[in-house]
Amino acid sequence: MSSPAEPAFRFSLEHTDRGTQARVGSWHTPHGAVATPAFMPVGTIGSVKGLAPDQLLQAGVQMVLANTYHLALRPGADIVAELGGLHRFTGWKGPMLTDSGGFQVFSLARLTRLDDEQVVFRSHIDGSLFELSPEKAVRIQEQLGADCIMCLDECPGHDVPEERLFEAVDRTTRWAIRCRDAQARHDQALFGIVQGGTNRRLRERSAEALRSLEFPGYAVGGLSVGEDAAEMYQTLDWTVPLLPPDRPRYLMGVGRPIDLIEAVLRGVDLFDCVLPTRNGRNGMGFTHGGIIRLRNQVHQRDERPLDEKCACPVCRQFSRAYVRHLFLANEMLGPVLLSWHNLAYYQQLLSDLREAIREDRAAEFRSVQLAGWGASL
Amino acid sequence: MSSPAEPAFRFSLEHTDRGTQARVGSWHTPHGAVATPAFMPVGTIGSVKGLAPDQLLQAGVQMVLANTYHLALRPGADIVAELGGLHRFTGWKGPMLTDSGGFQVFSLARLTRLDDEQVVFRSHIDGSLFELSPEKAVRIQEQLGADCIMCLDECPGHDVPEERLFEAVDRTTRWAIRCRDAQARHDQALFGIVQGGTNRRLRERSAEALRSLEFPGYAVGGLSVGEDAAEMYQTLDWTVPLLPPDRPRYLMGVGRPIDLIEAVLRGVDLFDCVLPTRNGRNGMGFTHGGIIRLRNQVHQRDERPLDEKCACPVCRQFSRAYVRHLFLANEMLGPVLLSWHNLAYYQQLLSDLREAIREDRAAEFRSVQLAGWGASL
Repeated sequence: MSSPAEPAFRFSLEHTDRGTQARVGSWHTPHGAVATPAFMPVGTIGSVKGLAPDQLLQAGVQMVLANTYHLALRPGADIVAELGGLHRFTGWKGPMLTDSGGFQVFSLARLTRLDDEQVVFRSHIDGSLFELSPEKAVRIQEQLGADCIMCLDECPGHDVPEERLFEAVDRTTRWAIRCRDAQARHDQALFGIVQGGTNRRLRERSAEALRSLEFPGYAVGGLSVGEDAAEMYQTLDWTVPLLPPDRPRYLMGVGRPIDLIEAVLRGVDLFDCVLPTRNGRNGMGFTHGGIIRLRNQVHQRDERPLDEKCACPVCRQFSRAYVRHLFLANEMLGPVLLSWHNLAYYQQLLSDLREAIREDRAAEFRSVQLAGWGASL
Repeated sequence: MSSPAEPAFRFSLEHTDRGTQARVGSWHTPHGAVATPAFMPVGTIGSVKGLAPDQLLQAGVQMVLANTYHLALRPGADIVAELGGLHRFTGWKGPMLTDSGGFQVFSLARLTRLDDEQVVFRSHIDGSLFELSPEKAVRIQEQLGADCIMCLDECPGHDVPEERLFEAVDRTTRWAIRCRDAQARHDQALFGIVQGGTNRRLRERSAEALRSLEFPGYAVGGLSVGEDAAEMYQTLDWTVPLLPPDRPRYLMGVGRPIDLIEAVLRGVDLFDCVLPTRNGRNGMGFTHGGIIRLRNQVHQRDERPLDEKCACPVCRQFSRAYVRHLFLANEMLGPVLLSWHNLAYYQQLLSDLREAIREDRAAEFRSVQLAGWGASL
C-alpha cells in the first residue's frame, strides 16, 4: 500500500463553464479514471439490480456505488475481504465507492442507541443487533476495498428541529476526525460529508469544519430527503462554494435528470441515485422526450425504441411494444432492459453535459433538455 | 415466399456414430444453420427469462423456442405479426421454433370442449374463452413467423386408458393432415408430432400415419409427462427408428442432461426444455461434477466458478460465493447468472457430444459424463 492517499488519486480540473459553476474534470483512481461530472448507479449489495458488469460498461457506466450497510449485514465485510474485496467479488473492474452505512442506519434499520461513541441498531433483515462507530465504518469499508470511502455521518430526518441538526453537524465533524484517524489503508480516498439540512448557517459550520480536515474529496449529504427541489438547489448555492475547488464534490443520493444538471451547474462533480434502476424496474423510462410509462396501452403497437435519440443496446434492439409486453407478462427481462436503458440515458446525459461545459454552453444545455422533457422531468 | 418448403430447409446428415444411433448433422433454416444434435432454450412469451439475445449467443445458443399458446394470449399473434414477427419483436435473429399450443391447452388452460373440429379452452391468465383448431394453430404460427412450426396435436395425460390414447393418436393424425393442408407460408418447416404415450403399438401407428404425410421433420411428443426415464428411453427405442432418417427428429420438452445424451444415442436431433432456466432461477446449477445448489452454506466462501471446466461468461467472472450471495439476497442477477451458465452448460454438453459422435465415441462420452455427475444427474 502506498502512502499517503493523494498519489493514488488525482483530480484534474479541465475546464469551468464560462456562465455557470459547472466544471469538467478527470478523477484518477486506482481502478481507472472517471470523467466528471459523473453518475454512479447503485449496486446496493454488490449488484446493480439485474445487470452484469459488461452491461454496465455498455451503458457507459464509469463508477459504481455499493452500500456498506447492506454488505456488512450480508454477506459480511469479512467474507467480502476473504473473497478478495468488492472488485473481485462483484466482477466490476472499474472505480467503486462505498457509503459509510450511516444513511441506512438512520433510515432503514431500527435505531437502538445513538451517542457520540457509536450507533447501535437492529438489522432490517433479521433484527440482529449491530454497532457502528466511525472506526468500524472505516474498518468495514477497508475490508470491502472500494476506491472511495465515506466518513460515518449522522443523518437526521428532514424535519428535525434546528438544535438536533446542530448536534448532528458537530457529531458528524467529530466522527470525521475519528474516521480520518482510523484510516489504515491509503489506497482509498476518504471523503468528508457536509451535513446541515437546508440551514445555511449549519451548512457553513459543517463545511468549514470539514474543510480544515483536508479530505481528498467532499460529499454533500442530507439532501434529497424530503425537501423540495428549490430548497435543495438553494442549499447547494450556499454549500458548494465552500468546498475546495481542487477536490471532487459528490452530491449523495441525487437524483432526477434535472437535479443532476442543476447541481452540476452549481459545481457538483459526482452523483449516485437508485432512480434510473428503481424506476426502470417499475416500468418508467427516461428519454430525451421526457418520462414514458411502458405499461401504458399507448405503447402496445409502438415499434419505436424507448428513446429515438438513444443508441444504447436496448434501443438498438427492442421496441417499446416488446418492452411493454415483457412488463405486462411480468418477465424479468422487462426490468432488466428498462434499467439498462435508463442507466445508458443517464450516462449519455452526463456525457453530453460534459461536452456542453467544455464548449461553455452549460446553461443552454439545461434549457434544451428542459424543452425536450416538456412537463415530465 | 418460396415454395415448396424444402428449398428453405436442408438437413444434411454428416456422420452417424459407429456404436449407437447418434448422428451429427447441419440443419439449414431461413435464419441460419443449426448444428445437430441441438438444444433450444424456452422463451415462453418471446424472452428466455432474464436473458437478452446477446447473452444467449454468448452461451452458444443456436435456436430458440417460443410458446404459441402464451403468445396467442398475450400480446396476441396479430400484434406480433404487425410488429414484424417473432424475430423482429424479440430481437433474436437466429432460427426459432414455435410449438402448436396443444401441450399448454391440455396442461395449463382450463379445457372446455374437445372434439374433432377444435378445442375450446379458457385462458389461465384471465379466464377468457379461446378456440384452437388445426387451421388456427397453423395460422397463428404463420403470424408469429418462426422458422419451424408444429402441427396441433392432442396431448392426453400420462395415465389415461389405452382407448383414450388411441383416440388421441388418430385425432392427432387427422389434425396433422388439416395442418398440412392449411399451411400457406412455405418458408416455415411444419413438423408432424408422433403421439402414443409409452405404448409401442400406438407409437407405431402414429409414426406410420404421419410418415406417409411427408413432413420435413418429425417431433416425438407425449414424453417427459410423468413416465419414468426407463419408459421414455424404451419408447424412443421403439419410435425413433420409424422416423425418416433424412429428416430432423425433435424430442419435445426433454430434459435433463442424461436424457439428452440417452435420446441422442437413440437418434434424436433436437430438444427443448425449461430445465436449465427454471432450475437456474431456483438456485440449481448444472456442472461437469453434477448438480450444485447455490443456496447451500457450503458455497459461502467458495471462490471457484460455478463449474471449473466451463468457460462461459458467468464462470469467467463470478464465484460460487457471489452467486450464492445474490440468491440469498433475492437479487435478480442471481437467477440471471445461473440461468445463463446453465444454458451455456447445456450448449457445451451438446457441442462436446457432437464432437464425440464425429469420433465414434458417443457411448464412451455417456460413461464419462455419468462418472463426472456422480449420483446427481
